[in-house]
Amino acid sequence: MKRKYKAYIYVTLRPSVLDPAGTAIQSGLEHMGYGTVEQVRIGKYIELILSAANEKTAQEQVDRMCGQMLANPVIENYRFDLVEVSVEMGV
Amino acid sequence: MKRKYKAYIYVTLRPSVLDPAGTAIQSGLEHMGYGTVEQVRIGKYIELILSAANEKTAQEQVDRMCGQMLANPVIENYRFDLVEVSVEMGV
Repeated sequence: MKRKYKAYIYVTLRPSVLDPAGTAIQSGLEHMGYGTVEQVRIGKYIELILSAANEKTAQEQVDRMCGQMLANPVIENYRFDLVEVSVEMGV
Repeated sequence: MKRKYKAYIYVTLRPSVLDPAGTAIQSGLEHMGYGTVEQVRIGKYIELILSAANEKTAQEQVDRMCGQMLANPVIENYRFDLVEVSVEMGV
């Protein structure tokens, strides 16, 4: 029996890493009249659906995918939430 | 008295909009042995700090910033959470 999980993944730059895109957006916002904005940091938000035998396996798989492909561990941090979306009856 | 709020903003493509970057990542994951991944959608995750008189004002400002600059309402949806981070005593 395979279960389906939806992963909500948040990839952010490490605090020590400069974020030129965030700085550009902050300055754009300031020009538009939003001078009250102090800091902007841009990250990635990834939603994916995967099948796995159980939540523990799904968790391990998503963690490996993040470390190997979705995030760059040298400059980025990641965290994710996992939600079971449906149960698929199978072999 | 100004309060400081941190906004966690999630910008996602509307479901009807194709996501070539997501498809590329899904195919990359498949080549790496993660064939159980079914769907990948890539969005933006933005953290920003702003000052406002109260939570309602902060909420309205972030909502306007999203509609005007952070998201493209034609192809993207957005949602955000707001958390008060500290109180700054001022004029």
